[in-house]
Amino acid sequence: MKPFKQMTILGVGLIGASLAQACAQRKLVARIVGFGRNADNLKKAEKLNIIDAGSTDMKTAVAGSDLVVLCTPVGSLVERVREMIPFLQDGCIITDTGSVKGTLVQEIDALITDRIHYVGAHPIAGGEQSGMDASSPDLLTGAKCIITPTANTQAQALERITAFWDAVGMHTLAMNPEEHDTIFGALSHLPHIVAYALMNTVAEVKTEHHNGILPMSGNGLKDITRIASSDPVMWRDICLYNKRPVVKLINQFQESLENIKILIEQDQAVALQETFANANLNRGKLVENNK
Amino acid sequence: MKPFKQMTILGVGLIGASLAQACAQRKLVARIVGFGRNADNLKKAEKLNIIDAGSTDMKTAVAGSDLVVLCTPVGSLVERVREMIPFLQDGCIITDTGSVKGTLVQEIDALITDRIHYVGAHPIAGGEQSGMDASSPDLLTGAKCIITPTANTQAQALERITAFWDAVGMHTLAMNPEEHDTIFGALSHLPHIVAYALMNTVAEVKTEHHNGILPMSGNGLKDITRIASSDPVMWRDICLYNKRPVVKLINQFQESLENIKILIEQDQAVALQETFANANLNRGKLVENNK
Repeated sequence: MKPFKQMTILGVGLIGASLAQACAQRKLVARIVGFGRNADNLKKAEKLNIIDAGSTDMKTAVAGSDLVVLCTPVGSLVERVREMIPFLQDGCIITDTGSVKGTLVQEIDALITDRIHYVGAHPIAGGEQSGMDASSPDLLTGAKCIITPTANTQAQALERITAFWDAVGMHTLAMNPEEHDTIFGALSHLPHIVAYALMNTVAEVKTEHHNGILPMSGNGLKDITRIASSDPVMWRDICLYNKRPVVKLINQFQESLENIKILIEQDQAVALQETFANANLNRGKLVENNK
Repeated sequence: MKPFKQMTILGVGLIGASLAQACAQRKLVARIVGFGRNADNLKKAEKLNIIDAGSTDMKTAVAGSDLVVLCTPVGSLVERVREMIPFLQDGCIITDTGSVKGTLVQEIDALITDRIHYVGAHPIAGGEQSGMDASSPDLLTGAKCIITPTANTQAQALERITAFWDAVGMHTLAMNPEEHDTIFGALSHLPHIVAYALMNTVAEVKTEHHNGILPMSGNGLKDITRIASSDPVMWRDICLYNKRPVVKLINQFQESLENIKILIEQDQAVALQETFANANLNRGKLVENNK
């Protein structure tokens, strides 16, 4: 891949800082500028050599960059793109790291003019941690990165951005934005919502002699709720941006759970065991697929 | 603790075999007999020195034992106790390892005569693995063990069995059986049901170009569904035996999830973020409590 001259990273958090370190290590960009609202965080990133320079001013941050990577929460992205466009140099390519694509990609596409380009991307990495302190040059290595071109995507920009994410060390896979949103709505958004709801339900349970029951928990609950420690702002934005697929998936999950409840209520031992055995089999496939 | 003369373990699987090894290591029983339906499994346990002898015949297995520990799935326990009672020597104490207590304890209590004793117990250990091969002398060490005495429990037997589980290396905690079932219904049974339902929902999702989506999963789904790999027969029995509390908890969880769905549908960003932040806080408490 021909290196970029200068990359601006919007949001020097877990993903932004990890990407910056991977790009430096792999010499994919000559210079890295960080943009963020928190000047102290940018100063710290500069001191740690994660970025070459940082700015809270958009014009300063994107001036001279031929690549801009959006790493801030999904809810702020469209606003940020609108803000930066007047200051972008001709030919600049924007890519992003948002966990939702459909509506978001449409909204950004609508802002794009002939002199700049946008290619949507979703690196499948992260976890329940957040912030620069949890970043690492290897966070993205070996993980999948979904690229979501549309009819508006310029072929050359698509090629360049795909090569970029490949060079970062990720396995790129192209997909239309709507398909992406259903797939990751199911694989990621729904599990997060379920973990949040479960955590709140269990925390509220009280009995005659126990005002709270969390101290008595074994490890099962801790594991299943790990992703309930994820950043609330990030997940609020993801749920609202991916509303239609997420609501549909919640409905499907509710149906699956309601069926189990009915089998329990009606003492349908055989069907209940079959349902659990089926889940068992599916989990086996999931583990097999992710070795 | 004064050692027992001979312990019979019903079901030489993950819990039974781990308990046998812990008792041998800590010299809590002079002799260990295993009972099970699978003669090959018993022979293997004998060869591995996990038990001193094994039998598929109940009379042979419990003859001469002053302690019997039930480690078979919850659904079979009452039947097994009924079967063994004629062969138990006077003063023999039965304890169990079942994940449900309320109805089960009542049913076993009803079978107990003056010359024998029963004290319910639930060691909080295990996980999604099962079988003797996954057993270890340390599986139970340091974990909690809930003891569930009732009005029918003889004081001396309660003292003896509490001392036994303490000597195994567990932290015992007494609780009434109904309270146990609500608490572990929430901490353990509900999370398992949710994991099973989620796994099945996600496995069924298809899109235009993808007939199955599991190969695209990141690590979040793998973690949250870990307990969906648990033994279907064991969890079928637990759900059916703990029906009333489990159904009530499913209803509470469904309400919590429905609320989140409504917040997403109505674009209530502030309330949605608060709900997620609350779950975040609760998960923090859970981790803090289980360090």
